[in-house]
Amino acid sequence: MKKNIIVGQSGGPTAVINASLYGVIKEGIISEDIDHVYGMINGIEGFLAGNYMDLTKDLSEEDLELLKLTPAAYLGSCRYKLPEDLSSDFYPDLFEKLQAMNIGYFFYIGGNDSMDTVSKLSSYAKQHSIDISFIGIPKTIDNDLVLTDHTPGYGSAAKYVAATIREIVLDASVYQQKAVTIVELMGRHAGWLTAASALARKYTGDNPLLIYLPESPFDFDQFTADVEKALEKTHAVVVCVSEGIRDANGTFICEHGDKARVDNFGHKMLTGSGKLLENYIRDKFGIKARSVELNVSQRCSGMISSAADVEEAVRSGKEGVKAALRGDTGVMIAFNRISNDPYTMECSTVDVSLVCNQEKSFPAEWITEHGTDISQEFIDYALPLIQGEPERKMEDGRPVYIYKKI
Amino acid sequence: MKKNIIVGQSGGPTAVINASLYGVIKEGIISEDIDHVYGMINGIEGFLAGNYMDLTKDLSEEDLELLKLTPAAYLGSCRYKLPEDLSSDFYPDLFEKLQAMNIGYFFYIGGNDSMDTVSKLSSYAKQHSIDISFIGIPKTIDNDLVLTDHTPGYGSAAKYVAATIREIVLDASVYQQKAVTIVELMGRHAGWLTAASALARKYTGDNPLLIYLPESPFDFDQFTADVEKALEKTHAVVVCVSEGIRDANGTFICEHGDKARVDNFGHKMLTGSGKLLENYIRDKFGIKARSVELNVSQRCSGMISSAADVEEAVRSGKEGVKAALRGDTGVMIAFNRISNDPYTMECSTVDVSLVCNQEKSFPAEWITEHGTDISQEFIDYALPLIQGEPERKMEDGRPVYIYKKI
Repeated sequence: MKKNIIVGQSGGPTAVINASLYGVIKEGIISEDIDHVYGMINGIEGFLAGNYMDLTKDLSEEDLELLKLTPAAYLGSCRYKLPEDLSSDFYPDLFEKLQAMNIGYFFYIGGNDSMDTVSKLSSYAKQHSIDISFIGIPKTIDNDLVLTDHTPGYGSAAKYVAATIREIVLDASVYQQKAVTIVELMGRHAGWLTAASALARKYTGDNPLLIYLPESPFDFDQFTADVEKALEKTHAVVVCVSEGIRDANGTFICEHGDKARVDNFGHKMLTGSGKLLENYIRDKFGIKARSVELNVSQRCSGMISSAADVEEAVRSGKEGVKAALRGDTGVMIAFNRISNDPYTMECSTVDVSLVCNQEKSFPAEWITEHGTDISQEFIDYALPLIQGEPERKMEDGRPVYIYKKI
Repeated sequence: MKKNIIVGQSGGPTAVINASLYGVIKEGIISEDIDHVYGMINGIEGFLAGNYMDLTKDLSEEDLELLKLTPAAYLGSCRYKLPEDLSSDFYPDLFEKLQAMNIGYFFYIGGNDSMDTVSKLSSYAKQHSIDISFIGIPKTIDNDLVLTDHTPGYGSAAKYVAATIREIVLDASVYQQKAVTIVELMGRHAGWLTAASALARKYTGDNPLLIYLPESPFDFDQFTADVEKALEKTHAVVVCVSEGIRDANGTFICEHGDKARVDNFGHKMLTGSGKLLENYIRDKFGIKARSVELNVSQRCSGMISSAADVEEAVRSGKEGVKAALRGDTGVMIAFNRISNDPYTMECSTVDVSLVCNQEKSFPAEWITEHGTDISQEFIDYALPLIQGEPERKMEDGRPVYIYKKI
């Protein structure tokens, strides 16, 4: 008897999470074992409230092609932690819903927390001999999932960072006066995305001259000395910092600015590490300082996505369906790099329980110059992931994306 | 006898100021009346210090093609106000330098202040019967120059805003919870760029639901009511505000947050209008709020530039050279829209003294819904300016731009 697929998206958006969804749908449609591909609206939280759609019925071929290059989560997302206790009432309720819909295969596209969901559901199904496959499809711009060479979403975010900072460097250099520009990048715990700012350099010695990751303790005196030295090399210094840089005690640098920041209305003002360092430079050096927070475009720029990343995201979705049809459950699709030149990558499956609640830090040996630079090994690692421009559909000067049919 | 050209860039960078430079060089090279095309390094300020380069000699054909799509000011820029008093020693010094280099044609690519420079220099030349043409080539993302339909630089900035906010809207809508995202856009005095956020909408009623320009007084109570109403329409409201929004007394909204904002180090914290409204929303509504400052990428994104804008920028440079060779001086190249459908534009020259120190506000009649929306007239005006994607040169996943040869 044919079974149905259900697929959901969870956690923060990326430029390619919909490409993974596209992969699941495409592979599901061509399989003779699959009847419908359903999509949970707003992840497992929405599904529990009865919200889902029939992706095989509701999306045309043209819709699917748009979906592939539409950033952010088409199905909507959630941040919902499943009960630790597998004997909670939550589980029978959920499984009843799944079985009522004749679901045989469950796919969850997400990061650490989503893999925790997959792990719990597959454990429950095994305990109760329920024949549903639970498969995790990796997704995160942070690139912090373990047991995989990298994650879909990272390549596009890294490309956005590389291209945008290359432009910011040009912008920052037009005047003659001494100036420091601080660029703040996403990644509260892992420095992978901030490291991608090294890809912005056109030549050795080009900006950004200083790069600070959360993995390396940040010290204000050392920072002052670093900037002083950098200002000897060029009048316009660009510094890239992770939002999550912290001091030797583990205190986030952005928390150093938390006191006394209340506006006229008595509202507490939240300030990022970039803004804080901008003010620090202005006061310390008495020179022009500016900060730029790259913000959400890092994770949702469809205009600067990487074709390599899009294709790998599609592949991870398809491989997920293949793994499920082979009978796998409780696994995440992982990427294994076979060779760097030419770049070749193979997919495999890894035990999802070993992935969830783990975090892959940026390798200490790739952080150089006492915590202010990134090694060539990283450049070699990252370059294949940012290659190529997808053929975007534009209309009247703007990108065409698919919107959920309401 | 052949004469030489000198060309400079001044004021803030744009994505196409180098396209205008390209136009000047290309038209200069093919003219039989022109020998060299020199470029001032860092505008008139750098030139006075003896810094210039020979653009006819130093740039290859390939360099020129890269220059056309390289954002920010290739020659470097300055913010330098010429003395009001034309009998100042400044002028004979400068003209001696120009005449020593056999300059017959002087081009300055910039905004209001740059047009002031052109105006003064042409007046001085006329007073002293010096045979040098002074021509202004318009440039500003703010679109606030008078006597021209629009300015090169605006189309690309508007396209960046439209595409990026369309993506931010998708990103902001993935969760189910009520949330407000504030996007802060450039344009301290004129709302043209913030108005471009209306181009992000895919359908009527799409986000951004609220758009506030500096031309319309901002009132906190009205804002509260506007947001309340918007939250009835959708759970995820996106609001676009100009950095320069101000209250009925003319006080910038960002100055409402100026008190008591000192961090642990005693540094004064500067906060934008977006951040301030984010905090206001969080406190007032008790819901999730986020602010995004689009920042410098608005003016320097070569990756999301408009082909129409690039071509018009090139044309303004070429038309400048043609006007100079016809004997014009003290003029700025202006754009006249002949028709909107099909879009046709003609160049003319306008008296530069009527342009400098003026500012073209966003038309009051294009601001609708008591200052929260933009009319269809603006959409019709702006759409032709954001059309088309230039063929960008990419290498190893990143845009290839030209760097000044040092």
